[in-house]
Amino acid sequence: MKRLLIVASLIGATPALADEGMWTYNNFPAAKVKEKYGFEPSQQWLDKVRLSSAKFGYGCSSSFVSPNGLVMTNHHCARGCIQQLSTAKKDFIANGFYAKTQAEELQCPALEVSQLVQITDVTDQLNTATKGLTGKQYADKLKAEMASLEKACTTAADVRCEVVTLYQGGKYNLYKYQRFQDVRLVFAPEHAIAFFGGDPDNFEFPRYDLDVTFVRVYKDGKPAKIDNYFKWSDKGTQEGELTFVPGHPGRTSRGLTVAQLEFLRDVTLPKQLFKLSEIRGMVTEFQNRGAEQKRISTNLLFGVENGLKSMKGKHEQLLDKNFFAQKVAAEQELRKKVDADPKMKAKYGAAWDEIARAQDTFRNIRKDYEAMEAGGINSQLFSLARSLVRYAEETTKPDAERLRGFNEANLPMLKNQLMSKAPIYPELEIAQLTFSFTKLREELGPDHPFVKKVLGKESPAALATRLVKGSKLADLKVRDQLFAGGKAAIAASKDPMIQLAALIDPDARAIRKTYEEQVEAVVRKNSELIAQAKFEVYGTGIYPDATGTLRLSFGAVKGYMEDGKKVEPITVMGDTFERHTGEEPFALPKSWLAAKKDLTATTPMNFVTTNDIIGGNSGSPVINKDAEITGLVFDGNIQSLGGDYGFDESVNRTVAVHSEALIESLKKVYKADRILEELRPGSTPAVKASPAQ
Amino acid sequence: MKRLLIVASLIGATPALADEGMWTYNNFPAAKVKEKYGFEPSQQWLDKVRLSSAKFGYGCSSSFVSPNGLVMTNHHCARGCIQQLSTAKKDFIANGFYAKTQAEELQCPALEVSQLVQITDVTDQLNTATKGLTGKQYADKLKAEMASLEKACTTAADVRCEVVTLYQGGKYNLYKYQRFQDVRLVFAPEHAIAFFGGDPDNFEFPRYDLDVTFVRVYKDGKPAKIDNYFKWSDKGTQEGELTFVPGHPGRTSRGLTVAQLEFLRDVTLPKQLFKLSEIRGMVTEFQNRGAEQKRISTNLLFGVENGLKSMKGKHEQLLDKNFFAQKVAAEQELRKKVDADPKMKAKYGAAWDEIARAQDTFRNIRKDYEAMEAGGINSQLFSLARSLVRYAEETTKPDAERLRGFNEANLPMLKNQLMSKAPIYPELEIAQLTFSFTKLREELGPDHPFVKKVLGKESPAALATRLVKGSKLADLKVRDQLFAGGKAAIAASKDPMIQLAALIDPDARAIRKTYEEQVEAVVRKNSELIAQAKFEVYGTGIYPDATGTLRLSFGAVKGYMEDGKKVEPITVMGDTFERHTGEEPFALPKSWLAAKKDLTATTPMNFVTTNDIIGGNSGSPVINKDAEITGLVFDGNIQSLGGDYGFDESVNRTVAVHSEALIESLKKVYKADRILEELRPGSTPAVKASPAQ
Repeated sequence: MKRLLIVASLIGATPALADEGMWTYNNFPAAKVKEKYGFEPSQQWLDKVRLSSAKFGYGCSSSFVSPNGLVMTNHHCARGCIQQLSTAKKDFIANGFYAKTQAEELQCPALEVSQLVQITDVTDQLNTATKGLTGKQYADKLKAEMASLEKACTTAADVRCEVVTLYQGGKYNLYKYQRFQDVRLVFAPEHAIAFFGGDPDNFEFPRYDLDVTFVRVYKDGKPAKIDNYFKWSDKGTQEGELTFVPGHPGRTSRGLTVAQLEFLRDVTLPKQLFKLSEIRGMVTEFQNRGAEQKRISTNLLFGVENGLKSMKGKHEQLLDKNFFAQKVAAEQELRKKVDADPKMKAKYGAAWDEIARAQDTFRNIRKDYEAMEAGGINSQLFSLARSLVRYAEETTKPDAERLRGFNEANLPMLKNQLMSKAPIYPELEIAQLTFSFTKLREELGPDHPFVKKVLGKESPAALATRLVKGSKLADLKVRDQLFAGGKAAIAASKDPMIQLAALIDPDARAIRKTYEEQVEAVVRKNSELIAQAKFEVYGTGIYPDATGTLRLSFGAVKGYMEDGKKVEPITVMGDTFERHTGEEPFALPKSWLAAKKDLTATTPMNFVTTNDIIGGNSGSPVINKDAEITGLVFDGNIQSLGGDYGFDESVNRTVAVHSEALIESLKKVYKADRILEELRPGSTPAVKASPAQ
Repeated sequence: MKRLLIVASLIGATPALADEGMWTYNNFPAAKVKEKYGFEPSQQWLDKVRLSSAKFGYGCSSSFVSPNGLVMTNHHCARGCIQQLSTAKKDFIANGFYAKTQAEELQCPALEVSQLVQITDVTDQLNTATKGLTGKQYADKLKAEMASLEKACTTAADVRCEVVTLYQGGKYNLYKYQRFQDVRLVFAPEHAIAFFGGDPDNFEFPRYDLDVTFVRVYKDGKPAKIDNYFKWSDKGTQEGELTFVPGHPGRTSRGLTVAQLEFLRDVTLPKQLFKLSEIRGMVTEFQNRGAEQKRISTNLLFGVENGLKSMKGKHEQLLDKNFFAQKVAAEQELRKKVDADPKMKAKYGAAWDEIARAQDTFRNIRKDYEAMEAGGINSQLFSLARSLVRYAEETTKPDAERLRGFNEANLPMLKNQLMSKAPIYPELEIAQLTFSFTKLREELGPDHPFVKKVLGKESPAALATRLVKGSKLADLKVRDQLFAGGKAAIAASKDPMIQLAALIDPDARAIRKTYEEQVEAVVRKNSELIAQAKFEVYGTGIYPDATGTLRLSFGAVKGYMEDGKKVEPITVMGDTFERHTGEEPFALPKSWLAAKKDLTATTPMNFVTTNDIIGGNSGSPVINKDAEITGLVFDGNIQSLGGDYGFDESVNRTVAVHSEALIESLKKVYKADRILEELRPGSTPAVKASPAQ
């Protein structure tokens, strides 16, 4: 991980040869791509790609791959749904799932797929509205204006609108989404091949995973008709070929100030890593309670281990002294240029120190804020309780005055979450709540008034058990009554989880208010100024940090050097069997062992590209210049984890399943002719006749 | 934790008013103590205190408190013995222990108490022997000379000798110990009061713990006759009174270079914290397997939580930018002074850079070193196996060429450890080994040759289970045969744990050799030079970093300011009952609840002093100027955790049980008249007549 990163986004002068950037569709460097790869995407091409891509759930990417609503994503993105549809007797995680007919497709309890149909620049409106304001006034006005723009845009229940803050506030765009809420599971392979190599191989390459799942979006009970979708490439991709990755990178922090990066390095990341490590130990041992406990906690464990590994990579990147020195130098260069111009100095000069001061403020309230408001109490039942309590309270207020997440534009999604049929596992809930309450007491100390309020004279375990056993919120009817009943229903509720959420809500709101006004608003306002300063100094040919919204990156299939050795860019199916030991996580499923003789050993399995991606890009398609599918992104290599803070084309790699591996396994392992025919119409008979290896 | 520390040890000019320092008995600042507190300890006084103190086990302190071998230490220091003597039916951890007669005293399976009887300065011998040598030659010669000095000094089986490296090699002293290996449990209170407040209250103040245990050392089957021991103070201590703490502080790092501190801050501490956090989660959930599993893992969990909290304190101290800047400034000042003198520059000038280079070397081999040699495989059975394998190998070599720990002088202690009757819990062993093997694979990657050698095609859990179930090393007879049988017995052994230890020993030895020659020897040699430079620049009136050997600190009973409020220095017994909630860890034992009405509420319970201590001082007595017991050290406050790197008298505090709380509870809660009479001969009748509250 010791290397020098080119932080082009920061210094403005993007080197001509770097495949850096998670670009927006209204500021794509088409000319640059042409210069390097000889192909210049047109606006029409970009629009087609944008509309063929889809956000998957709240943290993944996906693509439309047929006119009948077939959507491709990763197995690990659809895990939640697959687990929710499973029972102790029918374990689709372990055994996979394939709907042989459309009638057998199963509806996911809580999943939304959404398509970005329109982008509108609203920077001027928002800047005008907040002009001259600071602190609370600034934050309130900005929030109100955003809510108002979103509300006006939300013209139907299947439309979602969101003001996206780009360039740390340098630009604001209004994104309009077509929502698909009836999503049904079509095909999922066994966990053992989807995540072959498990945590040890996660974020590594060479790799041998079939991390794919197909779902279908429905409209009015029928497969949705989709105009824009990606066709399948006939031949897949090969070394050196140009690759595009459309998708929803979650968050990068390349534009943060040094003070913010220091805070991440010294406080936020280590604290989160300590906590996640402990949860990992706890859940790993929880799995030993029994087979059913293992089943219900596997999804949680995957998320924890995945987060842990990726966060460790980020932490190490920030601990790299050379890298950090570059960040410091880039900031100093910009500040010097700003200070050299009296006009710019007056406008932007104080922004960095203001942000540093906000970090100090956050340092002082962090424990309280995290414990009371930001994830301190980790439980599905508690989340439902808090949302119900707040929904009742917030919807009595004018739209502009509500907490973010409770504006009119958010209510359809909120209701969707509150009424999700996803199962809740009491035993796991008790374990997680016990952990949360123990941490609460540990972080704040047993004498903190909030801790006394929550725990009273009970132990964390006793309280957790009483709450989970006493709560009826797992019952959809109960939630529906509370949702419909407003403040009176909440006040009258004897549900202990509702009572806890209501009891601590004033504390949580108070600390949130402090955070929003004294930290968030200050950072937001001053980041906006720094972004403007960057535009003024370096021009607008730069990309914004990732924001969980649709972007496009470009690159090529390319190996890299590691520990002095070349890592080849493409693995083959045959070697998958070499890695099989028979013991988890290196145990191939029976279906693969049985099909081994039929599979062509030289079929490309996984590959790497130079595309600049980050967590959230999981499930993105890899496409060629004809916008055809050549792969399915499911990971980045270990070097790419530092990509949160900067991109290094020499070693940062996107990891993808090759399109030919998808076809070969659908054909020979899973005999999933119905999907094959849909992906490559007319090809199935010929495929059937293909000789065995 | 944000504060400026005076790092007197570094800058030499110890401020006249700071109670800083863990002083050796041959360089105690008696005049300084007189100046501040009006009492000047004589050499006779110091000798008496030294001989009345004792090392307890391998990581704690204790004191002789009667002429008949009675020893006082902390409950948490004797936990290992108390747990080892417990069974599922007789749980002395939960219920406490009191031997009403001497005949009922129970022998601890694996415990040694040792008394420092002689100190000899051997600096000149060692410096002469290693003159002009570097690297491997230097390390080998130093090791050989130390072994030879230790061997010559070890004149009997109950004598242990050790060359102690002081001032990072600035001085070498030969310490001679009288060993007591027959140690018997006399009294232990219930865990619930010994560790009242549990992890939440650990390292905090105000505090209400009775963290005490009494054992007795025996010689030839009878209580040992002890000439030097501490008498009990009649009145205890009070605010402002002078206090001394003799004891064995484990390790401080106040003399480390900036490069070493950076490595600790950025690599060692975070990595250890991630690992310990995960173990904590694992063991916490392991306790839910059942009552017996809880019992057998409680000692481990305590150690993990204690280590975690203390390590977090250290990490935060190093992340404190002001504090770190002071360290940098102090080093720069010293280097400037060295560089200004051509002679000093030639001799010492390169030392800091050499140490920095050794850190870089360590960075490259750290994962291998830790995995293969330094704690990577965490299991009692594996430790036994490795020691047996190495013992067989090493004892075929001349003394000077052996691995440290296998020299003739160490063999009695080694045999003691190998033949310990302490129980081994297979279920916990499997859990810990599974964790170790999982980490091994995670840290080194599944393709590392060492990982393949250890795991083969097995999963971590399968391997751990097979090893533990297949190994017979829990049987003392088997160990005895292997110990006596030498290399032939090891080679012939079919025990899977012995086979694993033998299989990986070449790898472990190779990486250890690299570490010792390229890291340890370089650091040692150059630290020695820096220490000499410090003596040359600042004089010898400074104390060495803690080394786990006997030291003496001075101070006074004194409160401190926290969050703008005064923390009073003494708590009282009555408030202990206020803190009782009935739920662990705030549940008082029945014995206390029953005795509440008899206890004098105003009896001092715990108190704090300004003594400079660190982990390892647990179990130290607090004594007054008449060398009488006034308390029992069991903790430091949270601020003191940064004491590893520097001392801040304004907030760093030693936390102790008050001597009056010990007397009051032995009398009224435990009716332990036999101990009371031994501690304060003749006082028991009067005590019995004391009126209840």
